[in-house]
Amino acid sequence: MKASQMYLYTLREVPAEAEIASHVLLLRAGFIRKLAAGIYGFMPLGTRTLHKIENIVREEMDNAGAQEIQMSALQPAELWQESGRWAAYGPEMWRIKDRNQREFCLGPTHEEVFTDIVRQNISSYRQLPVNLYQIQTKYRDEARPRFGLIRSREFIMKDNYSFDRDEEGLDKSYWNMYNAYSRIFDRCGLTYRPVEADSGAIGGSGSHEFCALCDVGEEEILYCESCDMAATAEKADVKDAPAEQEAEKPLEKVLTPGTKSIEAVCDFLGIPQEKSIKALLYQVQVSDDDPVKYVAAFIRGDRQVNETKIVNALDIPEYALTMADEAKMGAVTGCVGGFTGPVGLHDCTIIVDSELVGLKNMCAGACEADHHLINVNYGRDYKGDIVKDIKLLQEGDPCPVCGKPVKKAMGIEVGQVFKLHTKYSVPMGLYYKDENQQERPVVMGCYGIGVTRTMAAIVEQHHDDNGIIWPISVAPYHVVIDVVNIKDETQMNLAEKLYEDLQAAGLEVMMDERDERAGVKFKDADLLGIPIRITVGKKAADGIVEYKLRRGGDIVEYTVEEAEQNAIDLVNAERRG
Amino acid sequence: MKASQMYLYTLREVPAEAEIASHVLLLRAGFIRKLAAGIYGFMPLGTRTLHKIENIVREEMDNAGAQEIQMSALQPAELWQESGRWAAYGPEMWRIKDRNQREFCLGPTHEEVFTDIVRQNISSYRQLPVNLYQIQTKYRDEARPRFGLIRSREFIMKDNYSFDRDEEGLDKSYWNMYNAYSRIFDRCGLTYRPVEADSGAIGGSGSHEFCALCDVGEEEILYCESCDMAATAEKADVKDAPAEQEAEKPLEKVLTPGTKSIEAVCDFLGIPQEKSIKALLYQVQVSDDDPVKYVAAFIRGDRQVNETKIVNALDIPEYALTMADEAKMGAVTGCVGGFTGPVGLHDCTIIVDSELVGLKNMCAGACEADHHLINVNYGRDYKGDIVKDIKLLQEGDPCPVCGKPVKKAMGIEVGQVFKLHTKYSVPMGLYYKDENQQERPVVMGCYGIGVTRTMAAIVEQHHDDNGIIWPISVAPYHVVIDVVNIKDETQMNLAEKLYEDLQAAGLEVMMDERDERAGVKFKDADLLGIPIRITVGKKAADGIVEYKLRRGGDIVEYTVEEAEQNAIDLVNAERRG
Repeated sequence: MKASQMYLYTLREVPAEAEIASHVLLLRAGFIRKLAAGIYGFMPLGTRTLHKIENIVREEMDNAGAQEIQMSALQPAELWQESGRWAAYGPEMWRIKDRNQREFCLGPTHEEVFTDIVRQNISSYRQLPVNLYQIQTKYRDEARPRFGLIRSREFIMKDNYSFDRDEEGLDKSYWNMYNAYSRIFDRCGLTYRPVEADSGAIGGSGSHEFCALCDVGEEEILYCESCDMAATAEKADVKDAPAEQEAEKPLEKVLTPGTKSIEAVCDFLGIPQEKSIKALLYQVQVSDDDPVKYVAAFIRGDRQVNETKIVNALDIPEYALTMADEAKMGAVTGCVGGFTGPVGLHDCTIIVDSELVGLKNMCAGACEADHHLINVNYGRDYKGDIVKDIKLLQEGDPCPVCGKPVKKAMGIEVGQVFKLHTKYSVPMGLYYKDENQQERPVVMGCYGIGVTRTMAAIVEQHHDDNGIIWPISVAPYHVVIDVVNIKDETQMNLAEKLYEDLQAAGLEVMMDERDERAGVKFKDADLLGIPIRITVGKKAADGIVEYKLRRGGDIVEYTVEEAEQNAIDLVNAERRG
Repeated sequence: MKASQMYLYTLREVPAEAEIASHVLLLRAGFIRKLAAGIYGFMPLGTRTLHKIENIVREEMDNAGAQEIQMSALQPAELWQESGRWAAYGPEMWRIKDRNQREFCLGPTHEEVFTDIVRQNISSYRQLPVNLYQIQTKYRDEARPRFGLIRSREFIMKDNYSFDRDEEGLDKSYWNMYNAYSRIFDRCGLTYRPVEADSGAIGGSGSHEFCALCDVGEEEILYCESCDMAATAEKADVKDAPAEQEAEKPLEKVLTPGTKSIEAVCDFLGIPQEKSIKALLYQVQVSDDDPVKYVAAFIRGDRQVNETKIVNALDIPEYALTMADEAKMGAVTGCVGGFTGPVGLHDCTIIVDSELVGLKNMCAGACEADHHLINVNYGRDYKGDIVKDIKLLQEGDPCPVCGKPVKKAMGIEVGQVFKLHTKYSVPMGLYYKDENQQERPVVMGCYGIGVTRTMAAIVEQHHDDNGIIWPISVAPYHVVIDVVNIKDETQMNLAEKLYEDLQAAGLEVMMDERDERAGVKFKDADLLGIPIRITVGKKAADGIVEYKLRRGGDIVEYTVEEAEQNAIDLVNAERRG
């Protein structure tokens, strides 16, 4: 397309609200426009790139045997009541009533809808497996929408759902999608890592997140260079310290005035933090009508707690867990702010990190102001209602698989594959009959790719100070032809020839023949991130043009034919993959 | 794709709620699924056809110089408050609040959003014209969603908006879109008629509806076979009867006991209905807080009223006009149910059809029970607050252009082109500077195509008792290969060869190798409406297959090569247009 005809408006200045490169550059290059917090529109170039990503996703889904459908964004509350999620979903769900006061939500995800569709047809093992996908608009009313397309409130997702007869089938579907995702993100030019992930509020177990690695990512990843271990911080297992063999000494209460922190009490008593027990006090309330319940969690003093593991141990939605009001909790449970320990607590759920079971003669709060207990031992002095790994894996900790120190990286979650098992099929009645006429629940998986988020992740990984550097596969145009002097007929004629030739060869070409200085055109070409720039200037009379790759490298003088051939070869090589 | 791998579920029975062919057949053929009243999902075949229609629209929009963008469905209330439509839109708008109680709607249309986008960039005549489109999901909470995709509450629309410097530019944009629409509906295989249309609540003037002609359409079209006149019933002008020359006789009140209808009083008095005046009593309330206002409209006794013309004459939203509570209205205005006439009415808006001005010595209600006035004359005896054509054009009436009797047809509105003029640019501050630095409002047009409704309209026009008959351009697959006996290796091998060959030639092929009787496959092929059916049966050993067009004609025996060539030629001819 010719730039003079394009709705093309770039910004010189960095928009005030934008903090990260993808947000800044997608706004500056005019790919997106903000309509409200977390709500964006896609302008012509943004729409082109969006469609390219969608088409990569579509091709790989089709190749993997999934079939495309398209469901509505409006979903009746009744479906979510069947699965139990209408009450459980929390404030991220956009809820709406129609003119007859019937309740709907704007779908944040489509497990219920797809389960409902499939249960209308599937009754026999002969009809399985099924894998259906859609590329569709999703809605989540984020508490803090931010980073442009990374965390928005209306966004485009590819989501699909697999339906199998058993766990073996699910496993096949799962790895089929895992492999398709790898191809998709490869083709999008992303550097990513599939990492083991927590199952979160969605339930079930067995999940990988595909994380595009970059410093501004919100997802913390722990990985091991000695083995294959890679997991989100939320999910990562932590190896317990070995059990200690020392003899249990008598429990003793000691005066520890003003030592409200682990650091303070350990300093005061002259013991290492590994010999202390840290208390974390929570309250749980799933819905406003429920009474508040209290939870005390205990881990080794030098550890950090992993609240996702606590949420999972309690089997509650994430939003239901908040820090306790210590005064109120104290009145009920006997805890004392800064001096809470597991001995003497009552009327609350006690979660003990698995590691503490084997540690001997620990120091813990005495549930009495200015006092601690020493020589506290699990089993003899206290017990947990729940004993589980609730620790956070941290950089340098031993790898839970091989024991070598783990490394940390940040990533943007661009995709997730997820084993749902029978979480939806059982409550929603999606059963099939096997060869023996036995009724069995269908075994499901769900799989998501944040299409608009992927666009932002690509920019995070592919940009420099001057702008975006699109991979050819998702660039809005392959080539930009910059005409230095549009009043020079020779230049314009040569540019037109290039424009026609390259398009005839199947390339997508933008010709910048706006009445602007060459410097403005070069700056815009860099900002927009078009992979190949061909400049038609003074040497047009000799049939010579300048050829430059946005990704770097020198400006090369080529004959028109050479420039064309280079551009065509480069784009075709990319298409062959 | 192979049918055994497809998510393909057809219904033998007619779904209870479906009344018209497109609704019945799209459900029965498994193209769509109902999720809630007026809310549908698209299954694999439906999604394929949907994408084909979208791509026809996209190509023709691109060719016409419009640029694709994609805005959000969620729209902040503030934009609609600027245009004044937040209060005016009525109960069809889905309204929703976010977690911070900020108000949004689910866009029923995007005039405000596009005006807002463009005003952020456009400041000079040099930047005009602009034409931006999107293919996007729209929301209207219809009071009576029905007919499947014809009148639904979540649906897909192509909408675009043109921005010009003056009326001349708008006119060019308007006819450019008009022509693009003609190409789109031609390519979709629709028999349609562009008809002059009322501007409705959206405002402005100058509009055409593109109506797909069919008996179940909700749009009444009046057209003339002698000239080009074609208009919706709402819009169509009506020629006034010629003014009468007779002398005005003295006004007289007569006793007409029990003659509440025009028919009754004219019979009673022995006069033709053309000599009587019919009264229509309305009340107007734009919002719940407003006081009710009363309106009396008068037309010649044998005419029908056109309420759209009344709404336009009063400049109110359509929903604000309802039939009056006659008792309440009588107490305020002096009207008397069945005996209301224009003489003596007070405290209401009187609208007089333009035709009545020239008619002499008419009969009208006396605003007194069991009495009428005769020899009523406009000017002498009564006047209108508004005098306008408020008549409905009816089949057989003289054409308002050439005077020949008009004909009537029903149609489904699949598209509309619309001159907005400065309706949005003025209140929303979209101005540009002309060559003389003079600020002028941008002159806008808006254009819509109901993409999902078009799908239904195609089915209405292309079906028979056995199912859908898709035009090749929008068929989910071009060819279906039915294998009579899948256990016969020769048949399967030949079918596979056909399948591979046709796909290699760029055709979209479905191979029905399900373990079903041939009769089931034939029935499904007819129901699904695939344009070309090739049956591989007993003569496979001789390389002979059966070739049949869904649109009709005989089953022909062809060699495989002949069948392939015929199919390829037919599809390619369609593609060349």
